[in-house]
Amino acid sequence: MVQNAELIMSPIIILVEPQMGENIGASARAMKNFGLVEMRIVSPRDGWPNSKADSMSVGALDIIQNAKIYDNIVDAIEDIEFLYATTAVERSINKNYVMADILHSSYPINQKVAIMFGRENCGLTNAEIGYANMILSVRTDPNFSSLNIAHAVAVVAHEIFNNLCILSTPDNIKRGGDESHTNPQILATRGELEYFFEHLFSELDVHKFCKLPEKHHHMTQNIRNIFTRIDRLSKNELQTLRGIITSLTRRNNN
Amino acid sequence: MVQNAELIMSPIIILVEPQMGENIGASARAMKNFGLVEMRIVSPRDGWPNSKADSMSVGALDIIQNAKIYDNIVDAIEDIEFLYATTAVERSINKNYVMADILHSSYPINQKVAIMFGRENCGLTNAEIGYANMILSVRTDPNFSSLNIAHAVAVVAHEIFNNLCILSTPDNIKRGGDESHTNPQILATRGELEYFFEHLFSELDVHKFCKLPEKHHHMTQNIRNIFTRIDRLSKNELQTLRGIITSLTRRNNN
Repeated sequence: MVQNAELIMSPIIILVEPQMGENIGASARAMKNFGLVEMRIVSPRDGWPNSKADSMSVGALDIIQNAKIYDNIVDAIEDIEFLYATTAVERSINKNYVMADILHSSYPINQKVAIMFGRENCGLTNAEIGYANMILSVRTDPNFSSLNIAHAVAVVAHEIFNNLCILSTPDNIKRGGDESHTNPQILATRGELEYFFEHLFSELDVHKFCKLPEKHHHMTQNIRNIFTRIDRLSKNELQTLRGIITSLTRRNNN
Repeated sequence: MVQNAELIMSPIIILVEPQMGENIGASARAMKNFGLVEMRIVSPRDGWPNSKADSMSVGALDIIQNAKIYDNIVDAIEDIEFLYATTAVERSINKNYVMADILHSSYPINQKVAIMFGRENCGLTNAEIGYANMILSVRTDPNFSSLNIAHAVAVVAHEIFNNLCILSTPDNIKRGGDESHTNPQILATRGELEYFFEHLFSELDVHKFCKLPEKHHHMTQNIRNIFTRIDRLSKNELQTLRGIITSLTRRNNN
């Protein structure tokens, strides 16, 4: 069926603060239509479990029942190696874009990938997009760009299903873990990158990098957008970055 | 945005006996996201207008309000020149298939196109698919192929929006009409083809073409599937076909 397609692990779908259970259920159904299995949900507005999500999932109740719930994005992406943030309209963020119809051109092979979708009424905030490696955009009529979440999930999942071969058994791919110290090719997870950002931002605060408190938020976002664009950042490389911070701050304190 | 795309007229979306107003509304929203404007509905189960369709259409209420309602498929496709029938699973029908992700490879330029979607629970019947020139199939996981209608509309409309340039003013394209007798390139409409089928089937009945009454339905379907596969059938050519029937039957009666 799929010609010259690359083998990939099934990407994880992350819904950020979804408001309506119906949309969560419909998203699960669309995922299952196109071979996706894992859903994560950050702070669903109406709590969890949600009977409307159950009923709208139709035959995809297994995805709803296995969905993992998180309080915040940082926890939800802790083990993710490559994160897409979906947007309908272009944002003025210094981050690479890929359109859904050519998603396969950017899709990282052999990485643990997640795709993040925002709220029904306002999508993802720029700060949330800042966590992502890349923006995934569904091209729409500019006069009416507000996509239903489940429609967006369907469109993106359909593109993946058609242009990439999803591995049914992600465990077949050799994962990181204990080898991380010796193998320079093991990729950093998003959790490790977050730990790096915490380290970096706390040091920047100590050193009063940002003079204006009202610009602090903007500053951290810009920095996130720089580092998250590093392609295939390995654990070793991240360790190096952290070492640089440690080193620089040590010298500064001397 | 779209590279090397062909100019097309915006295809018409036809929903056949949709059951839930919510799905009609959500389909209208997905259409508008991807630049489609005209919806036709054949025998909506819960009548028309439908307040649930209105509320689920969100910003696409104009599409709902302008939707045309028909009692049957024949009337709904009367002016259509090329008709796609969507299916999720493969059917044993002798008709050409195109997958949604390569829809643009088959899309007829400068023709009045409609795309027909079936009921929530059982899709289109084989008889209904018989009206179409081609089957449009959305590739899904074979273990879970039942797509929500609005998701199917979103996926198909997204492919069209990305791979074809929709003309905002269909009237800019020179249409048939009075020139049909002199210009052999003017295409036959589905209504004219239907008139041809009526002519043909009535003559076949007169001539007891089908010996077994229980096979009659099957016979007409097979014949439809033959003629609807004729690419770009012009009015003149259809006139020729009708002339053949008239001629053959006249000789037979002598």
